Amino acid sequence: MFRALAKASVALCPRVSGWVRTMASHQLLVSPPETLSKPFSVPKRLLLGPGPSNLAPRVLAAGGLQVIGHMSKEMQQIMDEIKQGIQYAFQTTNPLTLAISGSGHCAMETALVNLLEPGESFLVGANGVWGLRAADIAERIGAHVHRMIKEPGSHYTLQEVEEGLAQHKPVVLFLTHGESSTGVMQPLDGYGELCHKYQCLLLVDSVASLGGVPLYMDQQGIDVLYSGSQKVLNAPPGTSLISFSDKAKHKVYSRKTKPVSFLMDITCLAKLWGCEGKTRMNHHTMPVISLYCLRESLALIAEEGLEHSWQRHQETTAYLHERLQGLGLQLFVKDPAIRLPTVTTVAVPTGYNWRDIVNYVVDHFDIEITGGFGPSEGKVLRIGLLGYNATKENVDRMAEALREALQHCPQNKL
Amino acid sequence: MFRALAKASVALCPRVSGWVRTMASHQLLVSPPETLSKPFSVPKRLLLGPGPSNLAPRVLAAGGLQVIGHMSKEMQQIMDEIKQGIQYAFQTTNPLTLAISGSGHCAMETALVNLLEPGESFLVGANGVWGLRAADIAERIGAHVHRMIKEPGSHYTLQEVEEGLAQHKPVVLFLTHGESSTGVMQPLDGYGELCHKYQCLLLVDSVASLGGVPLYMDQQGIDVLYSGSQKVLNAPPGTSLISFSDKAKHKVYSRKTKPVSFLMDITCLAKLWGCEGKTRMNHHTMPVISLYCLRESLALIAEEGLEHSWQRHQETTAYLHERLQGLGLQLFVKDPAIRLPTVTTVAVPTGYNWRDIVNYVVDHFDIEITGGFGPSEGKVLRIGLLGYNATKENVDRMAEALREALQHCPQNKL
Ligand SMILES: Cc1ncc(COP(=O)(O)O)c(C=O)c1O
Ligand SMILES: Cc1ncc(COP(=O)(O)O)c(C=O)c1O
Repeated sequence: MFRALAKASVALCPRVSGWVRTMASHQLLVSPPETLSKPFSVPKRLLLGPGPSNLAPRVLAAGGLQVIGHMSKEMQQIMDEIKQGIQYAFQTTNPLTLAISGSGHCAMETALVNLLEPGESFLVGANGVWGLRAADIAERIGAHVHRMIKEPGSHYTLQEVEEGLAQHKPVVLFLTHGESSTGVMQPLDGYGELCHKYQCLLLVDSVASLGGVPLYMDQQGIDVLYSGSQKVLNAPPGTSLISFSDKAKHKVYSRKTKPVSFLMDITCLAKLWGCEGKTRMNHHTMPVISLYCLRESLALIAEEGLEHSWQRHQETTAYLHERLQGLGLQLFVKDPAIRLPTVTTVAVPTGYNWRDIVNYVVDHFDIEITGGFGPSEGKVLRIGLLGYNATKENVDRMAEALREALQHCPQNKL
Repeated sequence: MFRALAKASVALCPRVSGWVRTMASHQLLVSPPETLSKPFSVPKRLLLGPGPSNLAPRVLAAGGLQVIGHMSKEMQQIMDEIKQGIQYAFQTTNPLTLAISGSGHCAMETALVNLLEPGESFLVGANGVWGLRAADIAERIGAHVHRMIKEPGSHYTLQEVEEGLAQHKPVVLFLTHGESSTGVMQPLDGYGELCHKYQCLLLVDSVASLGGVPLYMDQQGIDVLYSGSQKVLNAPPGTSLISFSDKAKHKVYSRKTKPVSFLMDITCLAKLWGCEGKTRMNHHTMPVISLYCLRESLALIAEEGLEHSWQRHQETTAYLHERLQGLGLQLFVKDPAIRLPTVTTVAVPTGYNWRDIVNYVVDHFDIEITGGFGPSEGKVLRIGLLGYNATKENVDRMAEALREALQHCPQNKL
């Protein structure tokens, strides 16, 4: 493939002396790994866990395109389209709306790193792994963190939140809209107003709910909202979405200290994404291909329409619940009104090891589901019907796989 | 495409009361954006700037594959292959070697966030934008930063570094191997030893040099080395490579404070990447598709061989220099021994505006080059010959485009 180059030809060239000296005084001690010489392939798999989900065909096509420059005018156009797509998906008119170059965690950390200064009071709804995660991150930044601990499967009432606000006088409250580790949908109507009454900003994680559950950022008074690409949007993991209300922006822009991260500094990202006038500031090299995919996934949800997508998830998940109950399985979340229409948690059936079931389903049906996570570990199986994957056909495949798994996996009779 | 769902059908279902209440009390106020309904396409462009570079065909193919679960056993195999590929590319046997889910900046921030604790002394070679960037990040973390400022186009001698080490007693020294904003290749032989004599760790940025310039992490005594995916490796932006020596690992693992970032905490990433025994800890959702691409790009460099790739970059860039000088252009870096064989800086020719030249070349030839960055802004044009793009054919296309640009762009006669 490449023309052989004689080492000597380089050595003869007087201009490369530094280079040649380095080559001459060292040698390659680590050889090319054998495994890399094998051809690359990946299995075809139906991803019905809590994410990532399968890419929609149009997103898949975008992933196979060639790179363009991250600061080119074509890329700026793509970024503008993504911003508008996020505004639609979030139902917001916030100018400070953009995509983050990282997964959901990166959006979470971006929100916290910008919103919180050391010593400030931060109130967290900790009814699953995501609130605990937000608390961990906020403590690293030096915030004064108050966890409202509740058992997995529960949510927060307006009254519980009001007590927390009155007691801890936080600058920010964190709630998880779609608690994917427990399967709970946190209601959001009224929480924004309540926070604002207490001079607190409302920060909401919608990584596992966006596009599958009704969500109206502006009307619900959410100050910072973020979400992920790899759940309902069916885009590859590696980007996420975020938006700041004017109130939240004001707090961030009047900070006394710089955020601890340059990469996540929203004042820089705002300039990169053209949220502050026309000129764009070079910041980091954006994940160009992942942004192509995100653009396409936002186009898909705009085409279907949010309300249609919400109803489709609701209907398909209701059908899943029926099928699961038909197999004698119990839903982990007791109150039907707060069951999440994207990720369903099923109590691990008595006598079974959750790992056996998960392994059976992937080994025999090439379907991925997962066990619990954090506080729900060992307690549940998690099944996601996300975006493109939320169809009754997939529910039927899933139910059939589970039926067989229950028959064949070892069961300790108690 | 989707079957129409009547709103009423949902409203009739008693189990979705919370959901229906939310839908009933709000409405969609932000409409689907028009621009997203247009079909998506991107221009074919030859990327001869300092990065991103074009994807190699095999990498492009991997980008079009379907997602698998980020914690699946197939993904763990891919991660193991990537680790081995990085060990080869870095010429290291460090077990703490992995890919970062973010661009070069994310690797830089990961290195600093883990290596430095508040109040510690940090010495930075600041002869271009990258040292200044590292200094900015370290200051946010609370380190005590000492910048060795030198003019763009220069490098650091062993003597200069020794003076800095003796004076500031830093715990870490930062050097940029391939200073892509100025076109300088920093020699590295002897710097590791020198640092260790002063109980200092050596941190090196090889984002713009890896694969194009001889580099031997272990033999050169580099303690932390990171690089990017989107330069010589021809993978999409969005992942980067990092490795810690045992000395560096020891410093990180005996920190008194937690790193300010959860996402970049290397003790978590080590457990995710299987660098600490067999069990893997779930951490964040990794950019699955970008990692496929990185795997393929590492396979390509293993196949070609590092020495061959280094020589190819050296030869092709020497040819570029000839062609540029043939057009009457001046190289920005005066000393031929420290010219970078991946990114070449050309002094903006007298009387021309760099923007006119850059625009002419992209508009008429669909070739991307860029102007300067940071301290070199307005002073240079930057031309990259990176990996797959480093061919004499591309140099000829570039030279032809520049020849025409110089003829047609306005020139202010002085
Ligand atoms: C509700 C929620 N928040 C945050 C995250 C973190 O996102 P990521 O894994 O993409 O970093 C997830 C991922 O599963 C999630 O479900
Ligand atoms: C030498 C060097 N370091 C760091 C970076 C930052 O990498 P990224 O833009 O991928 O974040 C670059 C990018 O151009 C670089 O050339």
